[in-house]
Amino acid sequence: MKPLQHLFGIAQLDPDQIDYLLNMSESFIELSRRPIKKAPTLRGKTVINLFFENSTRTRTSFEIAGKRLSADVINISASTSATKKGETLLDTGQTLAAMQPHVLVIRHSIAGTCEFLAEYLTGTSIVNAGDGAHEHPTQILTDLLTLRGLGGHAGRTMTIVGDISHSRVARSHLIAAKKLGYKVRLVAPKTLLPSQVERYGCEVFYDFDAAIPGSDVLYMLRVQTERLTSNCCFPSIREYHEAYGLNAKRLAKAGNDCLVMHPGPMNRGVEISTDVADGMQSRILDQVEHGVAVRMAVLTALCGGDEA
Amino acid sequence: MKPLQHLFGIAQLDPDQIDYLLNMSESFIELSRRPIKKAPTLRGKTVINLFFENSTRTRTSFEIAGKRLSADVINISASTSATKKGETLLDTGQTLAAMQPHVLVIRHSIAGTCEFLAEYLTGTSIVNAGDGAHEHPTQILTDLLTLRGLGGHAGRTMTIVGDISHSRVARSHLIAAKKLGYKVRLVAPKTLLPSQVERYGCEVFYDFDAAIPGSDVLYMLRVQTERLTSNCCFPSIREYHEAYGLNAKRLAKAGNDCLVMHPGPMNRGVEISTDVADGMQSRILDQVEHGVAVRMAVLTALCGGDEA
Amino acid sequence: MKPLQHLFGIAQLDPDQIDYLLNMSESFIELSRRPIKKAPTLRGKTVINLFFENSTRTRTSFEIAGKRLSADVINISASTSATKKGETLLDTGQTLAAMQPHVLVIRHSIAGTCEFLAEYLTGTSIVNAGDGAHEHPTQILTDLLTLRGLGGHAGRTMTIVGDISHSRVARSHLIAAKKLGYKVRLVAPKTLLPSQVERYGCEVFYDFDAAIPGSDVLYMLRVQTERLTSNCCFPSIREYHEAYGLNAKRLAKAGNDCLVMHPGPMNRGVEISTDVADGMQSRILDQVEHGVAVRMAVLTALCGGDEA
Repeated sequence: MKPLQHLFGIAQLDPDQIDYLLNMSESFIELSRRPIKKAPTLRGKTVINLFFENSTRTRTSFEIAGKRLSADVINISASTSATKKGETLLDTGQTLAAMQPHVLVIRHSIAGTCEFLAEYLTGTSIVNAGDGAHEHPTQILTDLLTLRGLGGHAGRTMTIVGDISHSRVARSHLIAAKKLGYKVRLVAPKTLLPSQVERYGCEVFYDFDAAIPGSDVLYMLRVQTERLTSNCCFPSIREYHEAYGLNAKRLAKAGNDCLVMHPGPMNRGVEISTDVADGMQSRILDQVEHGVAVRMAVLTALCGGDEA
Repeated sequence: MKPLQHLFGIAQLDPDQIDYLLNMSESFIELSRRPIKKAPTLRGKTVINLFFENSTRTRTSFEIAGKRLSADVINISASTSATKKGETLLDTGQTLAAMQPHVLVIRHSIAGTCEFLAEYLTGTSIVNAGDGAHEHPTQILTDLLTLRGLGGHAGRTMTIVGDISHSRVARSHLIAAKKLGYKVRLVAPKTLLPSQVERYGCEVFYDFDAAIPGSDVLYMLRVQTERLTSNCCFPSIREYHEAYGLNAKRLAKAGNDCLVMHPGPMNRGVEISTDVADGMQSRILDQVEHGVAVRMAVLTALCGGDEA
Repeated sequence: MKPLQHLFGIAQLDPDQIDYLLNMSESFIELSRRPIKKAPTLRGKTVINLFFENSTRTRTSFEIAGKRLSADVINISASTSATKKGETLLDTGQTLAAMQPHVLVIRHSIAGTCEFLAEYLTGTSIVNAGDGAHEHPTQILTDLLTLRGLGGHAGRTMTIVGDISHSRVARSHLIAAKKLGYKVRLVAPKTLLPSQVERYGCEVFYDFDAAIPGSDVLYMLRVQTERLTSNCCFPSIREYHEAYGLNAKRLAKAGNDCLVMHPGPMNRGVEISTDVADGMQSRILDQVEHGVAVRMAVLTALCGGDEA
């Protein structure tokens, strides 16, 4: 496999690299199920989680991943960072890089932050943990690992439902689908869809029910309730749920083998009903488990290591 | 001893379990006094401190306890948690449990939070680090370990003074006292006492001085000064201190063998005077030291380990 | 060398101790450049970072230093500390000391905080990580380590420019200069200079250009832009930059061997221009790297250890 220096997005990975990372992730799932969840793989490596936006879930996942591999993990949250004192993003990055971490995991609201910093920082690998509406590659790898439960990616159909226009997850799956040969259907009201999204080679539906037959995965996106009401596309959350929420009746139409996925955190009763979220077909908690394993694999690959 | 799956409160523990935990704690006091404060007991175990309320003291105590036993410790504070984004408590809990921590230490303002979560989360032990006015079992075990300094619990008299009605500590000692055979006296103005508290088998005093003779421990509770003035039970903090504060004159009436305890943080000059807090009979800093040892024992017991 | 119990300030150190710490720091620079950045030096030692003021840079530097030496590092920030609940500083300190950390690293806005606490806390070493405008000894040691790049301290001239009156760095260099035989020039407008600062044996300049010839180091201090405008000494940031900012033209007058230093975080375009900050003569990122090494040395010296 081509060695990995940074992980900015799914766009940079070729299918071999994706397979390599997912294979390594599977071995790490096993490690996290052992009574002693520890490997010496990253001993003496320093991982800094630099989060300019809060994301307890993602930060905790990276932190656990690093610690289970014996790395030294340091958390920095924007609220206490020097950017408050007028330091530029680049100076914050260069200062941290001068402390010689092996990996800098960055969450930022602005797309392209990681690529920008990587041009200037030397000796430090950067992982994009979410940059605006751009990419969130460890989430996508997590989804792909979960999709492996169906026996492979090629030929599968993933139907992504919700606030597509603000979703880096939807965007990245469109890219990954082309690489791995699965199909993406996008379902949303027009106001939550980017214009000309069909260019990416996906099918677009305004009617959720029409998109269900033939779906192997129903991937529900979190909908910020503030956005629904302020954008006026729906008079109420209940009406959104009726039009675009996943409930048992809709899931029945998809068949028993269709998986339900969600990147979290969920708004129960908005994009997904409680019985579906907690039902037999839900893989939402598997995604969380897989997320730790994927991050262990990514950190290991970036530190030049091999599987545990 | 009956193995421990969770620690919700002192109410669930039988005297044998309490003794077992206190014995193990004593060995951990010794470990924390060594120059090298480290044992491999919890290597490869993941402990998550999930604090929905701030408590630097308790969080730090659990964190040091975990780290000295070589556990991987992750801190999550409510202010950065996904509950801010509308995620339910149960989803937050299930998400963290899917990352396979061995122990989830939870502080929450709502009584019963830990029992509620434990019904749904599998594979993770839960420790209650304080749930509203309900229980705070590691604090009580800490006090019981400190009480051992008197040579045993049975027949001793602990006099608890202050804001009884909001105190999980007072509540839990009433329960522990029955199990271990010590007596509890409660001292407070009527407005800070729950109604019918005598049902618990304790003596109740409105007059602090009347409660002092025969006390083996004077246990002073923190009084929130806001509560004093807003509830109007006292026109001033000074009058509260005169009626219910512990000073040298009162302590002298209790005799030289009487211990002074406080769960912290103290309001000096309110519930306790500075000379008493720092005096020979104070065991307040011993409680802090014992707190780390007790948490080491609890984490070890929950992880199925044995003493160091 | 005289053993070190606490590190309050550069004032307490004799030249031998400074040399000892800088020599040890050099070996730690080497450790942090290895692929495996880990030594067992502080295994089983507990280091608490107690920060009453935010300083991501300094906290992260201490945290990385401790972790690379295998210490257990605990971070406490003021915003979550019990002082919010009315606990006194001394009680916070004593409570933490009762948990038996080997080192308490303290940042506080009030000068003398560390000395005050050290009088009462037993068994715990205290490091001053910045106390008001008083001292910040690990920063000064960092600068001195960077100065070694010139081949020694004696006879060198360090020109410190900017907000001298609020600067613990300037204050501490005046003290260090006498011990090690280097000269300090202070450059600032009168409103940013303490009165009678010449007593410390330094040269004072109101004109930056006059101070440049013969300088071996131009040490630029961060200027808080709020302070400039509220104190009315400058009508605009641009005028400050023209009078007291370091740009390429000024640096050229100093010659090619003159080093540029800054304790960070920088205000680019205020006290320093971007081309100088990123230029060949800048040692600003070296200072950051050296900072980690110095903190490793200080923690090691306080824990009674030796070099890695």
